[in-house]
Amino acid sequence: MRTIIAVDIGGTQLRAAAYKKDQLQPITQKRVKTNASEPDTFGRLVNLIEDIWPKDEGVGAIGVSSPGPLDPHTGVIMSPPNIKEWRDFPITEKLRERFGIPAYLDNDANLAGLAEWKFGAGRGHHNILYLTVSTGVGGGVIIDDRLLQGHHGLAAELGHTTVQADGPLCGCGQRGHLESYSSGTGIERFVADQLSAGRESVLHPNKKNSAHDISEAAERGDALSIEAYAIAGKYLGIGVANFLHAFNPSIVIFGGGVSQSGPLLFDAFGKSLKERVIHPRYLDGLAITKAELGDDSGLLGARALAELKLSL
Amino acid sequence: MRTIIAVDIGGTQLRAAAYKKDQLQPITQKRVKTNASEPDTFGRLVNLIEDIWPKDEGVGAIGVSSPGPLDPHTGVIMSPPNIKEWRDFPITEKLRERFGIPAYLDNDANLAGLAEWKFGAGRGHHNILYLTVSTGVGGGVIIDDRLLQGHHGLAAELGHTTVQADGPLCGCGQRGHLESYSSGTGIERFVADQLSAGRESVLHPNKKNSAHDISEAAERGDALSIEAYAIAGKYLGIGVANFLHAFNPSIVIFGGGVSQSGPLLFDAFGKSLKERVIHPRYLDGLAITKAELGDDSGLLGARALAELKLSL
Repeated sequence: MRTIIAVDIGGTQLRAAAYKKDQLQPITQKRVKTNASEPDTFGRLVNLIEDIWPKDEGVGAIGVSSPGPLDPHTGVIMSPPNIKEWRDFPITEKLRERFGIPAYLDNDANLAGLAEWKFGAGRGHHNILYLTVSTGVGGGVIIDDRLLQGHHGLAAELGHTTVQADGPLCGCGQRGHLESYSSGTGIERFVADQLSAGRESVLHPNKKNSAHDISEAAERGDALSIEAYAIAGKYLGIGVANFLHAFNPSIVIFGGGVSQSGPLLFDAFGKSLKERVIHPRYLDGLAITKAELGDDSGLLGARALAELKLSL
Repeated sequence: MRTIIAVDIGGTQLRAAAYKKDQLQPITQKRVKTNASEPDTFGRLVNLIEDIWPKDEGVGAIGVSSPGPLDPHTGVIMSPPNIKEWRDFPITEKLRERFGIPAYLDNDANLAGLAEWKFGAGRGHHNILYLTVSTGVGGGVIIDDRLLQGHHGLAAELGHTTVQADGPLCGCGQRGHLESYSSGTGIERFVADQLSAGRESVLHPNKKNSAHDISEAAERGDALSIEAYAIAGKYLGIGVANFLHAFNPSIVIFGGGVSQSGPLLFDAFGKSLKERVIHPRYLDGLAITKAELGDDSGLLGARALAELKLSL
């Protein structure tokens, strides 16, 4: 009963894999399209799990990673952005009914942090700040080797930290969140606003310029694009200083596409972080590094959650 | 060996008390002036502890509450604001050498939070946000019944959360911290700035107006003073929204003198908190209340820390 099935519910793909204890590679795995426009996502998920169910192994539990908001204590997915049929969907109860074994749930950013703690860049650390910087900004926090979840399981929503109360609009409708500055969406918004105001750039004002387009223009020396990433990095430093003051971790791990931008983002980040920390001891021995697990962080985090729950 | 000696090192007073397990009232207690201008604070502390040492009880440990920054893991007080002779002072080691029993240390805000969890307004809650709002703003956080300390013991420095990156100067030298808006010092600075700029008020521009003076003027209808508290409350709401997103507690407990200001502060706080929370579930069942332990929170927190360490 030491085999775990891990499930990663993404906006474009449903993935599942079976892991034996102490083996990093899965013994079986499969992915299918989420097909979010079609109903019965749960039926497709059940088929996927049946497909990868190992024939010769007892399975101890199912771990599930999903976008939030969700409640890990009750196993209910509240309103995932990409699967409209799931509203207050009790996924762990449904899986337990169908497969007869316990199921555990948490959100993708929390579980990516947990995966990095157990299998990735955070091994050996007891206090970890994981940040994913991509379309949005998400957080996962490990404190004394335990995943921070909070009363309703809504902790570590770090992208929605206000760093400039009168700042730009965030995707959530609030102003001045870290995500409104440092996410891909934030970088794109800044460039679009500046282009609309007549700012010169190699980027076209009438086209949707992605964060990737902007980073390419920056690499070619476009001043607006360089500034866009520098602002994202500056506010990322301010946000991380807040999180160091709150959690005092020994490592900060960055995942997500925007965090692959190198010095374009991280030069300004490092300068800002150093300026904003209230005592140098927060930076004393602090590791700042990239996530190691890439696309598999959701699966490995779901697996780590289930293993923790079963005390494997 | 179930009796604990608790020590509270304050800027004006050194306090010590001996507590028997399961009795809220101390069996002995005493306080002396800190006499921060005179040397040998440690000698006075030793005398104080000897004075309250219970004659007929074995003492299990000494718990110490002190202003930070300090390292609870090593028991070293780094640079307390009011005792200049203590620089990187290994207080727990010194106490252990002198009295032959273990000693444990943490900062006053963390221990006030721990005290409220064990003996005060937070009893029965597992996830607690404690904020002291007085001259400064300090935090103490309980997560799953454990005190949040962090890698170097510097976690929960919540007053130094940036909420407006280009905001007013904080006492620490940074800009736009929660403390720069919502502390007594922040309220005083806002009023002084406005008076200097010629704003009308019943308060005198050439006098140092304390947060207490300002609250009295506000009660008499002074528009500037009312605005000063409303701004403090607004940013306190923004800060607490950040902390709900980070920690997702089931209770927020306010200590400190400024938190006694009633609707003057808390009307604006409540409005701002409600506006700034990204999902109503953060407020679902959330208790918001005053600290119960008052001046004894340092002693009771130091006691709680020592009892936790001894698993009493």
